[in-house]
Amino acid sequence: MALLDDLNWRYAAKAYDPAKKVKDEDLNKILEAARLAPTSSGLQQFRVLVVTNQAIKEKLSAYALNPEVMRDCSHVLVFAAWNNYTSERIDTIYDRMTEERGLPQGRFSSYTDKIKGIYLNQTAEENFIHTARQSYIAFAMAMAQAAELRIDSTPAEGFDNAMVDEVLDLHAKGLKSVTLLYLGYRDAEKDWLAPMKKVRNQMDEFVIYVD
Amino acid sequence: MALLDDLNWRYAAKAYDPAKKVKDEDLNKILEAARLAPTSSGLQQFRVLVVTNQAIKEKLSAYALNPEVMRDCSHVLVFAAWNNYTSERIDTIYDRMTEERGLPQGRFSSYTDKIKGIYLNQTAEENFIHTARQSYIAFAMAMAQAAELRIDSTPAEGFDNAMVDEVLDLHAKGLKSVTLLYLGYRDAEKDWLAPMKKVRNQMDEFVIYVD
Repeated sequence: MALLDDLNWRYAAKAYDPAKKVKDEDLNKILEAARLAPTSSGLQQFRVLVVTNQAIKEKLSAYALNPEVMRDCSHVLVFAAWNNYTSERIDTIYDRMTEERGLPQGRFSSYTDKIKGIYLNQTAEENFIHTARQSYIAFAMAMAQAAELRIDSTPAEGFDNAMVDEVLDLHAKGLKSVTLLYLGYRDAEKDWLAPMKKVRNQMDEFVIYVD
Repeated sequence: MALLDDLNWRYAAKAYDPAKKVKDEDLNKILEAARLAPTSSGLQQFRVLVVTNQAIKEKLSAYALNPEVMRDCSHVLVFAAWNNYTSERIDTIYDRMTEERGLPQGRFSSYTDKIKGIYLNQTAEENFIHTARQSYIAFAMAMAQAAELRIDSTPAEGFDNAMVDEVLDLHAKGLKSVTLLYLGYRDAEKDWLAPMKKVRNQMDEFVIYVD
């Protein structure tokens, strides 16, 4: 199926059928799309947490803008980014990269020295702005993959990040929550948005040709 | 073609064949994928600038980390986000949304009041953190669409944002540059990355199951 068809099909579901669950096989494809997403310097500065346990979903939903959507969906994905850059995090990735590619150790050391020179001189807040951005690329790929599978999804930024971090013990993992993605199957009768037209800026407003 | 195949195929091209140009028909599909990308509150808080003029590419490339990649690619897409939220920007989108959906005027006014209450009380810097994040979703969709078409691309964050903003007169448009996406066809002989294995975290490191 073509991506444009998938993007035209998808919308941010506002009501889920709690009886319909996403199959593991499909979930794995969605996670694989997120895992394959490109990231700055290939660092994959985030993790995806998968929540299906209903008690945890209900607990989290108290801190979400649309609690019933989270409660009724099949899976909650939490995209959580590195709370900071460290030398160790960067070295771990590049050590693996040289090993898996059969390159001499230190092949990328001038590059990693350069990025460490940037990130290790920035504050954790500045670095989190950057790591969080990367997670949006994977967040998008996960939505595209869900749509290809005709699985509904709801991107959700409206939640109490600090409380979600606490419930999921993200601080101990060196992570901070960025976005949520609910997955499942819509309840078309309850979903006010399902029948509505997708509205976007016209192409000639959206794109600016420079010449 | 399946998204996972496309994501496995793609990589960040490091050398382009300057003689091979992306066709308008393909470019339009890439831009359409970006246009259809979901955004927070549906606001499409960014624009995509398209640069093909060689003189402008050369001028911009002086401010890019890999100038020859920008110079030799076919098209440079510049993802540039709103420099701030304003009442007018929000109202323009929601006026259109109610009109195109045939809804009574003011259908979303309690919602727009709510988001204005958040954004208009934040600094321009805080708001740009949010608008820039949205552009990454479209940036990802554009990369996925290019890969589906077997067009090479290079996501590029390493550039002098202030200078790119100046060259493209973005301030006057209420925009600030976020990321670049180079499009074209690789020069496989010159591209050191082309033959290398794609390296990612293993799935069991990348995903954290919460239970």
